[in-house]
Amino acid sequence: MSGSLRVVGIGPGRADQMTEEVRHALESARHIVGYHTYLERLPPLERATRHASDNGDELERAGHALTLAARGEHVALVSGGDAGVFGMAAAVFEAIERGPSAWRALDIAVLPGVTAMLAAAARLGAPLGHDFCALNLSDNLKPWATIEKRLALAAQADFVIALYNPASRARATQLHEALGILRRHRAPGAIVMFARAVGRADEALLVTTLEEADPARADMQTLILVGTAATRRIERAAGLPWVYTPRRWIEAS
Amino acid sequence: MSGSLRVVGIGPGRADQMTEEVRHALESARHIVGYHTYLERLPPLERATRHASDNGDELERAGHALTLAARGEHVALVSGGDAGVFGMAAAVFEAIERGPSAWRALDIAVLPGVTAMLAAAARLGAPLGHDFCALNLSDNLKPWATIEKRLALAAQADFVIALYNPASRARATQLHEALGILRRHRAPGAIVMFARAVGRADEALLVTTLEEADPARADMQTLILVGTAATRRIERAAGLPWVYTPRRWIEAS
Repeated sequence: MSGSLRVVGIGPGRADQMTEEVRHALESARHIVGYHTYLERLPPLERATRHASDNGDELERAGHALTLAARGEHVALVSGGDAGVFGMAAAVFEAIERGPSAWRALDIAVLPGVTAMLAAAARLGAPLGHDFCALNLSDNLKPWATIEKRLALAAQADFVIALYNPASRARATQLHEALGILRRHRAPGAIVMFARAVGRADEALLVTTLEEADPARADMQTLILVGTAATRRIERAAGLPWVYTPRRWIEAS
Repeated sequence: MSGSLRVVGIGPGRADQMTEEVRHALESARHIVGYHTYLERLPPLERATRHASDNGDELERAGHALTLAARGEHVALVSGGDAGVFGMAAAVFEAIERGPSAWRALDIAVLPGVTAMLAAAARLGAPLGHDFCALNLSDNLKPWATIEKRLALAAQADFVIALYNPASRARATQLHEALGILRRHRAPGAIVMFARAVGRADEALLVTTLEEADPARADMQTLILVGTAATRRIERAAGLPWVYTPRRWIEAS
């Protein structure tokens, strides 16, 4: 009896922003493992037993999914967005490397999804239209000094910057510090976007500037995009402006 | 009569890696505009007139789509991958900013998709499991000196680096130069991945090192991922190794 593990990204929140490949994998799975918030977003899946976990140890959750697959079960392990971007995929391979060698022979596939920054950018226009980077602002798994260094270098490289996990109850002041670093390297008028719960009922979007960006506007559901000096806004009669970063880059002299 | 424009990303190549939202937009459209290679990948869409163009002026293609929408037509403008990542979305907003003011009142939405680096990473494991950047290696729209600067800063920031458009017939030597810059800042054993035509019939994957990476292996269909010093490979009995970048980062002393 040969099991399987599909590590799937269910997209940012809207049910129809899931790929058909991921939907099919969920419908085929007999066990669905994931953080309870993501499992609650799934459609009814009558064939499957759900294994909901807290937002705790990803390595333990990955090991649970791998153990089920090694027993011959067909398992889907769920991430929000894309499993490969600050999601469960890296934890799965870390668990495999540390785990029994039989896990290396399992039928495993990672199925990509729409990660939060792509959905946020689409709602706002095309702010990621030029070179960009994605930085996880949590210092749970890396030193804060590393994050500071990366922010400064990313700003100097004129990357549009996507900040994942900008704030949590346990990390309230770090976004304030991060914006301070960016202000030293990027013009005060640079466009900053707060995108919360994109595509979901409680979606909230804000377009502001680096100078005026208020860290208190971010929570665990928020993704922040920081434009470059070239990023532009187009005012509209109704609603938020469109924001885009031109494809063409002209080096400031 | 009020038209609409949907700027859609059809994903990296596999038909089932399109989101349901994008499929629905394509089925609803009366006009589908795009580069002919992407239009050829679409399923039969009997309601729609197709407007295929060469891989030329994106701004002109965007203007064509906007003109149709302004006439009251329902239009889908197609990009491969995600329209917001080196795709058509930025060209649309550039055209709007330069175009008639009526275009700002049009019903426009960008619908996100799975961009090439996410699909490539998923096939290889989880190489984007830590902070990363996406850099378009084409110097058609920015100076080569800017690209060189960004490569050096991205390497110093220890970002995993995704290189889009690493080569074309007109740009044969630039990837060689780019790899040279990366070799000055990153260990020779750093893992480099060439992912060509991911999810399509002619898919080709290669896992090598920065030292041994051969620029001749890249073409217009290739995406390159350059791992950090922390990126790891897990050998398997059969097939390519899994590659992943651990979530945890420990600063080298």
